[in-house]
Amino acid sequence: MMSKNIVILGSTGSIGTQTLSVVRESGGRFRVAGLAVNSSVEALRAQVEEFRPEAAVICDPEAYAQAAGDWPYPDTALWCGMEGLIRLVQLESAGIVVTAIVGMIGLRPTVEAIRAGKDIALANKETLVCAGAYIMELARRCGVRILPVDSEHGAIFQCLQGVGEGQISGLILTASGGPFRGYTYDQLRKVTPEQALKHPSWRMGAKITIDSASMVNKGLEMIEARWLFGCKPNQIRVLVHPQSVIHSMVELVDGSVLAQLAVPDMRLPIQVALEYPERGRRVVQPLNLAAYGSLTFEEPDEEVFVSLALAREAMRLGGLYPAVLNAANEWAVREYLERRIGFTGIYDAIRRAMDFAAAKGLTSGSYELEEIWEWERRVREFLTQKRG
Amino acid sequence: MMSKNIVILGSTGSIGTQTLSVVRESGGRFRVAGLAVNSSVEALRAQVEEFRPEAAVICDPEAYAQAAGDWPYPDTALWCGMEGLIRLVQLESAGIVVTAIVGMIGLRPTVEAIRAGKDIALANKETLVCAGAYIMELARRCGVRILPVDSEHGAIFQCLQGVGEGQISGLILTASGGPFRGYTYDQLRKVTPEQALKHPSWRMGAKITIDSASMVNKGLEMIEARWLFGCKPNQIRVLVHPQSVIHSMVELVDGSVLAQLAVPDMRLPIQVALEYPERGRRVVQPLNLAAYGSLTFEEPDEEVFVSLALAREAMRLGGLYPAVLNAANEWAVREYLERRIGFTGIYDAIRRAMDFAAAKGLTSGSYELEEIWEWERRVREFLTQKRG
Repeated sequence: MMSKNIVILGSTGSIGTQTLSVVRESGGRFRVAGLAVNSSVEALRAQVEEFRPEAAVICDPEAYAQAAGDWPYPDTALWCGMEGLIRLVQLESAGIVVTAIVGMIGLRPTVEAIRAGKDIALANKETLVCAGAYIMELARRCGVRILPVDSEHGAIFQCLQGVGEGQISGLILTASGGPFRGYTYDQLRKVTPEQALKHPSWRMGAKITIDSASMVNKGLEMIEARWLFGCKPNQIRVLVHPQSVIHSMVELVDGSVLAQLAVPDMRLPIQVALEYPERGRRVVQPLNLAAYGSLTFEEPDEEVFVSLALAREAMRLGGLYPAVLNAANEWAVREYLERRIGFTGIYDAIRRAMDFAAAKGLTSGSYELEEIWEWERRVREFLTQKRG
Repeated sequence: MMSKNIVILGSTGSIGTQTLSVVRESGGRFRVAGLAVNSSVEALRAQVEEFRPEAAVICDPEAYAQAAGDWPYPDTALWCGMEGLIRLVQLESAGIVVTAIVGMIGLRPTVEAIRAGKDIALANKETLVCAGAYIMELARRCGVRILPVDSEHGAIFQCLQGVGEGQISGLILTASGGPFRGYTYDQLRKVTPEQALKHPSWRMGAKITIDSASMVNKGLEMIEARWLFGCKPNQIRVLVHPQSVIHSMVELVDGSVLAQLAVPDMRLPIQVALEYPERGRRVVQPLNLAAYGSLTFEEPDEEVFVSLALAREAMRLGGLYPAVLNAANEWAVREYLERRIGFTGIYDAIRRAMDFAAAKGLTSGSYELEEIWEWERRVREFLTQKRG
């Protein structure tokens, strides 16, 4: 069996390190061709030491300059910034690019990786949320696979393997419900960043943890699912399932439901994406349902977690409205963590930004990539002005 | 889309009538080519009246004679007995045969249907339990599909559609656990037929209901699964799941678990088998997991429900040992319903019959079909003598 050459964008983050853990336990199935970080020089050095990639990228110019001064790995080229990221994803030897970089910065290298014919193991949420129509069409034209790395879309992807065209009636994204499941809107309003930074099932970064607590992440996942699986917005539902064992489900036209289950461990969806269409040997704990005893389910309270309705509206409006939602959320999470707005202020910011975009004539039609950054900037400026 | 022509063996039983319900709601996707019953003349007439098959069979000679006297359907031939069943499954127009007949009598027409190149929607448990190796090899040679109709194997069949060769690590058959879940062996020993004839989730016939309460049915399903899916005996496990919503699961080599869920309604697995590889429109209620609230799981108590260990032993011994187990169980259930033995006497009879077969030199090797009936007879005689 040939080994696959992997480029990891964001190799020192949560998904990045877990990807390397999968590589480490793969028994030679994968080789690391390239690694990219923002500024974590020490962690990057340790990874280069262990995995000996062809090239590494440090996005931050200062961190790059510091590292480049005494770079002790002659076989690993060291590059910088967006230019470096783009060279990295274009590496001749690379077969698949793991886009585990967080934020809008992940979009451009993903586009270049697709243009270079590399399969994408997609962990960067912004890619499909902001540019889903564009990316899926580009991937189709370039003949590359977009393989979801998160547990929910990975579950749906697995369930759909044996399902024919036109046999899907709906997708059910499961959600842990976050730490504030059962809260009233008024209780949610008063949640502090300390409370919000806890999460029951997954260990993650701060931005994603807040998104999970606000269920904005689930709204973003609805938008991603729409593009990944070619569904209509009204075919995508969310079901709260606190144990995070059923990672998502697919409802077929005859009423049969297919589900994918596993212990909550991100290494599995990462491995599934990297191995596809093969399956690797087990690196996660086996699932013991009897030890869980029971799995519970409830409808999300959409009167409280209005993020779901907002995401549905952004999908319905189409065009760059999901990008506007995403930009407003990014802005609002930062404001919230710096204690300038309350928790439900996140929803207010999204709502205000979407109204602003509509008032400024944002349409549902197709768009150029550049417009995404343009609207991101406009939304950020609008929200910051409003605050000031 | 062409309509499929269906022959139903056992059309007035539980599976048979539900199959006709699926046909009725299929909007012309299916046509009934033939119907066969044991002796339910009135019910058969009503079905012939409605579905106008080419031919009908009444197995019981007396019932046949009575019906043939004033058979008012000139376009529906009426045949009798095993000869009739065999002619029926060989009908030129038949595409798929639903083997919903109960007991060993179902084996021979199934064999003839396979030889005639008809796909099999398999509801007769004895077929694979008693002659699994023979049937699967015959089906392979004749290029016909064996499509499981029961909910557990139907679930696994659906889960496996997108799974590649060598990617399965195990099958998990779910079990309601029956009405005596949690009982001690001593409590189980004292169970009366009245108590045993209740079943929490499915409406079924008396034999199957007792098998479900004793969990012999789950042992038989393990044996069937082994043949249907080409698994090793130690790859098949049973998990108690009282709500019967997850109908079974497949564990993959990487630790991912695929499951099929639906409301407990036999019409869905019937429809899935008939429509395969298509999917029909929904005839069952949609699954509402939030309304269930929770799904629970526990390991079966194999110290009490020793049927599972007995089935495993029969699989391990191979050859006709599963047929011996089945014959002993059939004998014992009848004895139990007639109050000649206690509930756990069913297990004792199976154990004694398997010991008897071993003592009489039954091997693990291949066998001729005739030997199945021979061993069935020997087991019945042995057990009856022992009783007397």
